[in-house]
Amino acid sequence: MIGIDWGTSSARAYRLGRDGAVLARREGARGILHVAAGGFGAELRAMVGDWLEDGEARVLLSGMVGSRQGWQEAPYLACPVGLDALAAGLAAVPFEGAVVRLVPGLSAEDAAGVPEVMRGEEVQAFGALARPDEDALLCLPGSHAKWVRVERGRIAGFSTSMTGEAYAALRGHTILGRMMEGPAEPGAAFDAGVARAAEAGGLLHHLFGARSLGLFGRLGPADAASYLSGLLIGHEVAAALPAAAALPAGGTPRDAPAAGEAVRLVGAGPLTALYARAIGLRGGSALVGDPDAAARGLALIGERTAWT
Amino acid sequence: MIGIDWGTSSARAYRLGRDGAVLARREGARGILHVAAGGFGAELRAMVGDWLEDGEARVLLSGMVGSRQGWQEAPYLACPVGLDALAAGLAAVPFEGAVVRLVPGLSAEDAAGVPEVMRGEEVQAFGALARPDEDALLCLPGSHAKWVRVERGRIAGFSTSMTGEAYAALRGHTILGRMMEGPAEPGAAFDAGVARAAEAGGLLHHLFGARSLGLFGRLGPADAASYLSGLLIGHEVAAALPAAAALPAGGTPRDAPAAGEAVRLVGAGPLTALYARAIGLRGGSALVGDPDAAARGLALIGERTAWT
Repeated sequence: MIGIDWGTSSARAYRLGRDGAVLARREGARGILHVAAGGFGAELRAMVGDWLEDGEARVLLSGMVGSRQGWQEAPYLACPVGLDALAAGLAAVPFEGAVVRLVPGLSAEDAAGVPEVMRGEEVQAFGALARPDEDALLCLPGSHAKWVRVERGRIAGFSTSMTGEAYAALRGHTILGRMMEGPAEPGAAFDAGVARAAEAGGLLHHLFGARSLGLFGRLGPADAASYLSGLLIGHEVAAALPAAAALPAGGTPRDAPAAGEAVRLVGAGPLTALYARAIGLRGGSALVGDPDAAARGLALIGERTAWT
Repeated sequence: MIGIDWGTSSARAYRLGRDGAVLARREGARGILHVAAGGFGAELRAMVGDWLEDGEARVLLSGMVGSRQGWQEAPYLACPVGLDALAAGLAAVPFEGAVVRLVPGLSAEDAAGVPEVMRGEEVQAFGALARPDEDALLCLPGSHAKWVRVERGRIAGFSTSMTGEAYAALRGHTILGRMMEGPAEPGAAFDAGVARAAEAGGLLHHLFGARSLGLFGRLGPADAASYLSGLLIGHEVAAALPAAAALPAGGTPRDAPAAGEAVRLVGAGPLTALYARAIGLRGGSALVGDPDAAARGLALIGERTAWT
């Protein structure tokens, strides 16, 4: 089987064995923003045509490729949703020479009735579970970071924060960016931003502090990006950690993570390390998960799919 | 006397009578960002040369013109600061044919020791007072909105929120802006944003709600900018209203505005109306102040200045 996590700005293709093993992988920059309407079939052949010729006849796609701006829109399934429901809800995509299926996105509502949506993260979330029936609290950092509550193997609810996109906009298009050099990274400046996020005044006030600390020489250009990142991730974690634990499900909402419950971080690389640090500073604990969660999730859904 | 409120992106010049009356006014787009180093004297002549030739020999400048990027840097005075201290702290600017003075900016610290700065708003704040010795809580909306606590006629402390600049960055450079048409304005969508800001989840989560409500057709393109503005101003007001009331001064910090105390809004136009609405929705009351507060403040400082 071929599984592709096909997002807005990039795509990751996996050739998967019968047991879900990753036989080969490819990463490309041809996210859906770079593919013209009507061009997705050709793009699929460009990405994995040789695997198709080599006998792979099943393709499972997840992510924004199933959105209105993607290949074909796959409707959202409303939470709670388990792996079987996800597999039963795949959308068929017409394609010559292989069976192509799209994983639907998920929807939910927060306590105030405001809608939540995800596309692609649900596959990573299922792939990150250690057991098919477990309870877990997952965090998927990114432009639109997701906190996902899993109960008995089903996604019970989730919450999104626009942390990554806000960081990019504030760094790239406000006075804060003028004083910044280099990337955000773990260290004292990031920790100071997380600590600041716990103080009174609100995020919009704390942002100005990044400017004024720089003005008085108390925050240098090499540290300013890390401080800003700490502010934003610190605010996200402070709000999302208790809220995600309380997401409604079949059972009773909880107002804090279960005692000793660790947040499972999905993803890899520097951003995951920053989240782990911020969660620790806020009194939580974090486990860094499998960077190939998407491949594992695609394989799990593929196993449950009637391919004919 | 000539008074000029000379900011980053624009300048407002006033010709003032002995009693502080505004005899003439001019508004120009030649903020300090548009003036090259060494070009400020020529720019002053371009702006008010005819008033100088007509016999005005005293010029008082306030705002970012006194910053490192301006004509000449005027050091900050540390709060608390009254009108007399401000007048005693003016910086002299060499200029042929008139006495030119710069109003210094103010600095303060918040409860956590993070610095605060303003340049120009202090003049507007003094100009907005009804009596020279009063207590007041002022709000000056803008890119960097200021909340100012005045006690017995002195600026005791203040707090800044980067609300306006964050709005511009989020609208102009995130996915939120793609679904927006037209300006933010008072109405049901703005009110909904302010109400949302009072709910759990934090600003970064609430931002994503603006996106998801649009996706489900519950927030139209004509309403989305107002909703975003309501979210941001709502978060600012929720944090700043009690915090500004508690700003330290000579007396005891207070944890809420004094009973019946109204926030005095300084400025004019649509943004002031939005702040008044948000303050009302958060249970406060707001007075809309004099749009010529800068002219009045410059006149008050000019009266106290030894011009020779």
